[in-house]
Amino acid sequence: MTWDATPSQSSGASKLRGFSVPLSPQGRAGLTPAPPWFYAGNLLLVDYEADPAAVAEVLPPGLRPDRQDPGGCVAFFVDWQYASTTGDEPTDPVRSQYHEFLLLVNAVHDDVRVQTCPYIYVDRDVSMARGWIQGWPKKIGEVHTTRAFPLASPAAPQIAPGGRFGASLSANGRRLAEASLTLKRVSSDPVFLGRRPVVNVRHFPRLAAGQHDKPAVHELVRSRLGVTRTDIWEGEATLAYHPAPDQELDALAPRQVRRGYRYSSAFEVSDLDVLQDLT
Amino acid sequence: MTWDATPSQSSGASKLRGFSVPLSPQGRAGLTPAPPWFYAGNLLLVDYEADPAAVAEVLPPGLRPDRQDPGGCVAFFVDWQYASTTGDEPTDPVRSQYHEFLLLVNAVHDDVRVQTCPYIYVDRDVSMARGWIQGWPKKIGEVHTTRAFPLASPAAPQIAPGGRFGASLSANGRRLAEASLTLKRVSSDPVFLGRRPVVNVRHFPRLAAGQHDKPAVHELVRSRLGVTRTDIWEGEATLAYHPAPDQELDALAPRQVRRGYRYSSAFEVSDLDVLQDLT
Amino acid sequence: MTWDATPSQSSGASKLRGFSVPLSPQGRAGLTPAPPWFYAGNLLLVDYEADPAAVAEVLPPGLRPDRQDPGGCVAFFVDWQYASTTGDEPTDPVRSQYHEFLLLVNAVHDDVRVQTCPYIYVDRDVSMARGWIQGWPKKIGEVHTTRAFPLASPAAPQIAPGGRFGASLSANGRRLAEASLTLKRVSSDPVFLGRRPVVNVRHFPRLAAGQHDKPAVHELVRSRLGVTRTDIWEGEATLAYHPAPDQELDALAPRQVRRGYRYSSAFEVSDLDVLQDLT
Amino acid sequence: MTWDATPSQSSGASKLRGFSVPLSPQGRAGLTPAPPWFYAGNLLLVDYEADPAAVAEVLPPGLRPDRQDPGGCVAFFVDWQYASTTGDEPTDPVRSQYHEFLLLVNAVHDDVRVQTCPYIYVDRDVSMARGWIQGWPKKIGEVHTTRAFPLASPAAPQIAPGGRFGASLSANGRRLAEASLTLKRVSSDPVFLGRRPVVNVRHFPRLAAGQHDKPAVHELVRSRLGVTRTDIWEGEATLAYHPAPDQELDALAPRQVRRGYRYSSAFEVSDLDVLQDLT
Repeated sequence: MTWDATPSQSSGASKLRGFSVPLSPQGRAGLTPAPPWFYAGNLLLVDYEADPAAVAEVLPPGLRPDRQDPGGCVAFFVDWQYASTTGDEPTDPVRSQYHEFLLLVNAVHDDVRVQTCPYIYVDRDVSMARGWIQGWPKKIGEVHTTRAFPLASPAAPQIAPGGRFGASLSANGRRLAEASLTLKRVSSDPVFLGRRPVVNVRHFPRLAAGQHDKPAVHELVRSRLGVTRTDIWEGEATLAYHPAPDQELDALAPRQVRRGYRYSSAFEVSDLDVLQDLT
Repeated sequence: MTWDATPSQSSGASKLRGFSVPLSPQGRAGLTPAPPWFYAGNLLLVDYEADPAAVAEVLPPGLRPDRQDPGGCVAFFVDWQYASTTGDEPTDPVRSQYHEFLLLVNAVHDDVRVQTCPYIYVDRDVSMARGWIQGWPKKIGEVHTTRAFPLASPAAPQIAPGGRFGASLSANGRRLAEASLTLKRVSSDPVFLGRRPVVNVRHFPRLAAGQHDKPAVHELVRSRLGVTRTDIWEGEATLAYHPAPDQELDALAPRQVRRGYRYSSAFEVSDLDVLQDLT
Repeated sequence: MTWDATPSQSSGASKLRGFSVPLSPQGRAGLTPAPPWFYAGNLLLVDYEADPAAVAEVLPPGLRPDRQDPGGCVAFFVDWQYASTTGDEPTDPVRSQYHEFLLLVNAVHDDVRVQTCPYIYVDRDVSMARGWIQGWPKKIGEVHTTRAFPLASPAAPQIAPGGRFGASLSANGRRLAEASLTLKRVSSDPVFLGRRPVVNVRHFPRLAAGQHDKPAVHELVRSRLGVTRTDIWEGEATLAYHPAPDQELDALAPRQVRRGYRYSSAFEVSDLDVLQDLT
Repeated sequence: MTWDATPSQSSGASKLRGFSVPLSPQGRAGLTPAPPWFYAGNLLLVDYEADPAAVAEVLPPGLRPDRQDPGGCVAFFVDWQYASTTGDEPTDPVRSQYHEFLLLVNAVHDDVRVQTCPYIYVDRDVSMARGWIQGWPKKIGEVHTTRAFPLASPAAPQIAPGGRFGASLSANGRRLAEASLTLKRVSSDPVFLGRRPVVNVRHFPRLAAGQHDKPAVHELVRSRLGVTRTDIWEGEATLAYHPAPDQELDALAPRQVRRGYRYSSAFEVSDLDVLQDLT
């Protein structure tokens, strides 16, 4: 599960271990060990239509607009719990839990209808590191989603018709997104994470002078997620985005909200398909 | 649901509204509106025995040690969601959700076996304010408890035999408490919040010189909680406390851990019994 | 510096110590020890004019509008460091440092021109507790103010003509206020904390049913601050407020911004004048 | 200052801009624009000696122990302010300010005495991203350092003989490091950031199955920092590290603390020397 750096000739002794920085003698200090990575979470989704021109502008090289649904977007608000095979994270939940906002927009790659992620926010460094490695362009944000509890209370919606949920995203102290959902029924045609393949860009810059426009890594990749999920509830939803000087999420604001969804899901990440070197 | 300050003669116009500070023209700015307050949450408990002398030292005036179980303590780690009748908090979850660590120790009041709370931590100002008003001596802390998800995953324990949960409390960047629990069975003799009445001290100091030892409010109160709950699971547990310069929780560290419990609960707060003026 | 609760007859043993909750055997656990409390900080001020009717609406009983300047307000953004006489906080800076936004509005009390504080935000529980005890109606917020450094850099303004500073306040992930200031000169007629006496309301509610509108403490108080300060720089400023469902700050938004100020200050709090019981 | 992705043939339209993820239509959303990056800060340093074997274990390939001072380490606690040339960060200080703990250990590269950074913590995503790009292996932590204020107060040390400062690092709610320093005099032989060249490893993993031990980027780099600084004060210091399950900092705990230092510094980053490809 760990990686041993090849000793250099001059040192002869380097045995730094790990998958991500910081590499360390025992391999415990790294932000994330090597896969497999396991996730379980509760997801609130809003399926909506943005300005197709704005969607086209966030497509990376190699992807083109989805002519059947060129403005199609899905916003996700998620409470996640994570485990590796080495760290026993679930029983030290400060290292296991994080919250995420994720936007997927429609696109086509090689005649396959896919989604790509222009913007995504999480509240833990470990998740941010794993995201960069997978091609999810994560930044730090604060995400909250209403929780259900299995008891009748004004403080808790039920997973049942009429259950009302809300969600919000903030970054740097500015509210960026907020959503609401009222459950109606179990969905017969649900939208969910993984319904389409997700194609993103893995990107790592160069800092040496003269090479700032020649990234060391710049490649189109397709996520491989082994996903399970519960029944998916659907209902009416709202979604709004707000501007901020260091964000462009609001350019993808809803023209029309279609439907909201709520479900639980678990998945595993161990692999990635590299589709194209874009450098 | 709001309180109108009686206009003074000199102003003739003051119509500040609200239950807690800040009072404001519309009554929306106050940390908390007047009750009723509704709560739903998931609770992880550890029932344990501390040094009886240390327990006796944290009993307020009016309470004496419980001779049948003088070291008896219960530590709670809770994920809460809150609602008032005015603020629609559950659909703006950043204002509705908070996390709590709570310690109850055994005592006797007027020949009734009760519990009292020497130390309690939450992660939201609104909850801290409601706590002070009820007699819960709340400070700000960071609390995490493992969550269950309804799908098999290394990232998620089940509410089932063998399900493993962890929990932690930190304040000011120092780890103060950590616990673990492995579920075994539904409990036939469970420990839970509200099994005994809870008697606390409502306290609000005076700042005027010469009166620092004459608090404006210093009274023994008994909580009134209308509680519902799910089945309670029990199992083997661990619990440890760590010292910090601004905390005394570790004086109540476990001598022996008895058992852990996990369940969901909902309750309402609208009232309080004032037992004795201690000033 | 600590307070010993009078032992009750039934316990005979209670020796809980401290000034604020939680009272504890050693008196170290309380949010704040008894005064004196010492503060040093860097302050960015914006002197401005709000709608006089909105200012009149936030005046507590006992205060009336200042007819010479009925819309006069000052917004403060401050980086503070705190010390008690018992805790050695400055060398454990996580317990000593906090950030504050503070609004003062003009008023008259007994023919004396004063200021009162309708809204104030800090980022530490200890400061929130000391605030409530003094009559400052504190909530938790996130405050940032540009710092000066004694070296020329695009990353650091100087305390000199042309130095540009910014500041912001957020609460619950929403931006509530933002300001900017460009230094011009040392001020010959500066606005500063303490130029007028500050009169606030100390308030602590009752929770017993039927008494929600009969607070236990509701009194008009005047702060006693022993203040020193550096030279005060002045210059052109901007200030904007933004709405939020749980805030009413934006009702006091600027009609006209007058001038901004920046300086350092130190002060001590040990006492408070109680002017009038408002219950 | 921005980078235009080469349009792909299939899209013909991709004009995503930026230096780091997320690339975006306007280039405002990326965590960091391209250099130059400007920094100003206050630094508290502790120069100390760790176990030379522990230092040797954290040296990357290409570096060997410094035989003249094989256990030599410097721990830095810093309050930073940052500016790019595009974002006007200093006047929106929530985006400009961050706090950092940084450990440098002695090494030799090609017969030049250098330092390398095994562990470093910051409290902002933007700084973490810039760190990875430079070869600083940053994680998120909470860092506090006592501030000086230009007024006599128990709440504020002076930059003068006897001035007492403290500092701390926490991550995931656990205290990892704490230091103290008492100023004695302006130093005639100071330790400071940049006294030796800093050589680090830039590292970015691959996720494709079978390539987890073949990082996409794994190269030895030397920082290029254009540094200015104030006088450096020195004095007696203390330093302690604490263990955590996801950290290995404590393996480099002090055997002997030499001396502490405090000063202000400003610097610029625009370039990096790539010394060796380690893949």
